[in-house]
Amino acid sequence: MSEVMSSKTKDKIIHTAIQLFNVFGTGAVSTNKIAKELGMSPGNLYYHFHNKEEIIRAILDAMIADWDKLWLPLPKDWQPGLNDLKAIIRVNLQLQVKYRFFYRELITLMQLDPELKHIHQHIQEQRVEEQKKFFQLFVDAGIIQLQVPSEFDALLTACWIISNYWLSFLETSGVEVDDSQIEQGIQLIMTVLRPYIAVEELAGE
Amino acid sequence: MSEVMSSKTKDKIIHTAIQLFNVFGTGAVSTNKIAKELGMSPGNLYYHFHNKEEIIRAILDAMIADWDKLWLPLPKDWQPGLNDLKAIIRVNLQLQVKYRFFYRELITLMQLDPELKHIHQHIQEQRVEEQKKFFQLFVDAGIIQLQVPSEFDALLTACWIISNYWLSFLETSGVEVDDSQIEQGIQLIMTVLRPYIAVEELAGE
Repeated sequence: MSEVMSSKTKDKIIHTAIQLFNVFGTGAVSTNKIAKELGMSPGNLYYHFHNKEEIIRAILDAMIADWDKLWLPLPKDWQPGLNDLKAIIRVNLQLQVKYRFFYRELITLMQLDPELKHIHQHIQEQRVEEQKKFFQLFVDAGIIQLQVPSEFDALLTACWIISNYWLSFLETSGVEVDDSQIEQGIQLIMTVLRPYIAVEELAGE
Repeated sequence: MSEVMSSKTKDKIIHTAIQLFNVFGTGAVSTNKIAKELGMSPGNLYYHFHNKEEIIRAILDAMIADWDKLWLPLPKDWQPGLNDLKAIIRVNLQLQVKYRFFYRELITLMQLDPELKHIHQHIQEQRVEEQKKFFQLFVDAGIIQLQVPSEFDALLTACWIISNYWLSFLETSGVEVDDSQIEQGIQLIMTVLRPYIAVEELAGE
């Protein structure tokens, strides 16, 4: 198999695994089920991935690459606006929808695979730092106004929890999750942030 | 076996199962492991519960009974105060700590057992209604002040998500969860609510 073909097949396997994991959960989806869905022999799948753990780690790599695109360094003279804040929350929630099985099962997956736990915790720390820097730009620009500095971490944590678990909350309520719930999620996070946003910024909302 | 003894043994099994599920997750804990932890033969455990699903449903019953105690009807002349709000958030988080495996794995558990899904969704609807009524008392008393009525549902949902997923957030960050994180969780929810709370109520904070 050529390298290009092999990489395309790998991508297909990853894509199909994500879809099946999102619907049925990782526990209920075997590598055989993924192969069957792709009309591929189990042996052919095995050529690319030796087990489900390897597939899940490859999905983690794909996720990390997707998140990296979100937190690209900003130009030096960039002026933040309320719409930028909403835009980043939106992309955030879109990635949560795309990889929702991962966030839904995160603690279990970390218990089953210490290597995945290690990678994820490292990445989470990095993401929190990136998010802090991004929020700080809004504080510096006077768009987010805090009375005491300690509110900064608390607000950030509240937004992080809501954006990471908004879909799980919907799913436990029996809602079938897709992109159509994203605007609702943005509104929810904005309810938390709004009291801290400068009045003149809210005029155009 | 007498009924009293049988009920005591059942309680012990449930208690031990909760501890093991909290530490290792339901996937990694077999009924045999629970029996072993209790110094009990697998046959004796089987006399009380035929499989892990039955144990998990019994835990759900115990949880529901614990939550029911939280939402007892209030006396007619009850005057809500900020400390009552914090107290109910505290008990809420304590129950989340006690049954944390359940909230952590909820969607997976619901996927594996449609009966549990049915019971949980029904209960969740009921809990949301109880919480709404409780919050409404604070709105009626002028303690929580809203500019538009639609903020009510959004605030309630934000508090619900934070209180239900605060522990999962800590666990994915590598924090070992126990009662010591509860006050932090209350502070976090108060950061979301504070801008909506009457100034005179905050004076004594």
